[in-house]
Amino acid sequence: MKKIIVDIFGADNGPEPIIKGSLKALEHFPELGLVFVGDRETVESYCTVDGDRIELIETSDFISNNENPQVIFTGRDESSIAMGYKRLKTDDDCIGMISAGSTGALLIGSICRLGLIKGLKTPALLSNLPLYNGRMVCLVDCGANVQATAKDLCRFAVMGNALSYCMGNSESPRVGLLSVGREDRKGIPLTLEAFELIKQQPLNFIGNVEGSDMVTGYADVVVADGFAGNILLKACEASGLVAKGVVEHIAKQFGQENSEMVKAMSEHLRLSFDYNRRGGATFLGTAKPVIKMHGCATVETPFACIDQLLKLKAAGFDEKIKSALENMN
Amino acid sequence: MKKIIVDIFGADNGPEPIIKGSLKALEHFPELGLVFVGDRETVESYCTVDGDRIELIETSDFISNNENPQVIFTGRDESSIAMGYKRLKTDDDCIGMISAGSTGALLIGSICRLGLIKGLKTPALLSNLPLYNGRMVCLVDCGANVQATAKDLCRFAVMGNALSYCMGNSESPRVGLLSVGREDRKGIPLTLEAFELIKQQPLNFIGNVEGSDMVTGYADVVVADGFAGNILLKACEASGLVAKGVVEHIAKQFGQENSEMVKAMSEHLRLSFDYNRRGGATFLGTAKPVIKMHGCATVETPFACIDQLLKLKAAGFDEKIKSALENMN
Repeated sequence: MKKIIVDIFGADNGPEPIIKGSLKALEHFPELGLVFVGDRETVESYCTVDGDRIELIETSDFISNNENPQVIFTGRDESSIAMGYKRLKTDDDCIGMISAGSTGALLIGSICRLGLIKGLKTPALLSNLPLYNGRMVCLVDCGANVQATAKDLCRFAVMGNALSYCMGNSESPRVGLLSVGREDRKGIPLTLEAFELIKQQPLNFIGNVEGSDMVTGYADVVVADGFAGNILLKACEASGLVAKGVVEHIAKQFGQENSEMVKAMSEHLRLSFDYNRRGGATFLGTAKPVIKMHGCATVETPFACIDQLLKLKAAGFDEKIKSALENMN
Repeated sequence: MKKIIVDIFGADNGPEPIIKGSLKALEHFPELGLVFVGDRETVESYCTVDGDRIELIETSDFISNNENPQVIFTGRDESSIAMGYKRLKTDDDCIGMISAGSTGALLIGSICRLGLIKGLKTPALLSNLPLYNGRMVCLVDCGANVQATAKDLCRFAVMGNALSYCMGNSESPRVGLLSVGREDRKGIPLTLEAFELIKQQPLNFIGNVEGSDMVTGYADVVVADGFAGNILLKACEASGLVAKGVVEHIAKQFGQENSEMVKAMSEHLRLSFDYNRRGGATFLGTAKPVIKMHGCATVETPFACIDQLLKLKAAGFDEKIKSALENMN
């Protein structure tokens, strides 16, 4: 049985969508087991903890977004993230963890509690942006490394490629480096140096890409330092929301806000720019995969994240990413 | 009479929209004079060069986007940009120049042919993004300075504030510094240092802003290094185009692509994300203002740019920006 650890805390709407969505996945995947981390009363109000397919690690402590995430560095052993990571690290049956908790605590905890792949000092954060044609663009890094080196960017390329491939996005993902123009010479010293490093890897490297290429479908993997990546991601997401607002506003002027067509437009715009719709944001480089769910997680969110973790396991993601990093030229 | 220099070359659709739009402005503004830079035959096929309200600087040479823009550094004295800058520099009646030509040549030419405000080494490039509520967000820098220093960012803040104020966007423009979160401590060494410098200026500094704030209306002026600014701008513009595509695609599925409502949606989405709709991209820090028009300029583009230059002149922009830079703390 493949077990996935589910931190029930941290979502804006409380544990309900997290638990319900995970149970939906349990029903859907017969070989799946769940290890909830949370308080017994809440979990047992939705299911029976049978110790087999449904386990529970009992705790009521969690690290909120208002706390300094560094509290996990030396303390808060009873927090849901710390307890989840402890189990993930030591139990071979556990293949990954999902949490809607503090991104900072998940990040720092992955370093000091879970451990990283040899040679890495921080994990990278990868987000998925669905394109209208059904394809998926992976952006790495989205903010975990705001001061990345050229070698870091090269690692992001290698790790993003492994994830995109294992998720079935492409047999040979087109990897692009975020810059200010597609020409080879465009960029800053960091990207120019990274360009030369990435070029030497066994990747389908398509060279520099622009901010627009996050939504044009020109690349499958967009590599960026965490500063530019975070700005890019938030800009795309917000632009989609603004566009949705424009459409709904005009529909109202025409008295058409409830028409089937307008509803379809709103829904497609929401889905096209919702960067964590499928699978959430994935930490890359951690000993085992960890997915950070959106704070505004719905029942669909944990289901999609669990689906992603099972897909990664089936595709041998852990081994692929390790060997890709080891063999980096 | 206030004269504006109009480079007729460089637009994707040839000189026609540039000349026609400028003549429309000439008709609209009784105190305006135009100095076309281009070949006599083309200009005279649209108007009579009377040497009074319509002048002509004759040349048929222009620097194309495919050329290395540095050719203007030591040569190409007969190119339209070089000849336009020469006149702009020496004629007190000329208040600014508009061109759809090579951005690189306009940038380098502004340094070596026109001259910058004392103390500056490069100009900054400012783009306007119209918001749906009719307000305007100024983004500075959009790519002229991909390796900016903290002091550069502080200058961008001061110059962007002057432009936003003089364009009548706000009596007290809210100036934000682009970063990865709104909290003061979020950022990279460059932005953290710039934060401290900008804080000391007599500005309505609202602190850090995020990539999303380019479209949310939280700030009137967004300050960024040219690398992040360029990525942000292209991401917003492309996201708007994608959203427009989504809307049109769904309308077609419903057989509604020609309905008035869908047309209104498309048009509003186009306008909401067209970052140079009003006025084009402005070089800041040049001895006199220069506006780079979109390559795909229409008749409206030169009109809007000329309108902007007249507004800036009337508001005393040249003096305001000089004194703001001199008095920078």
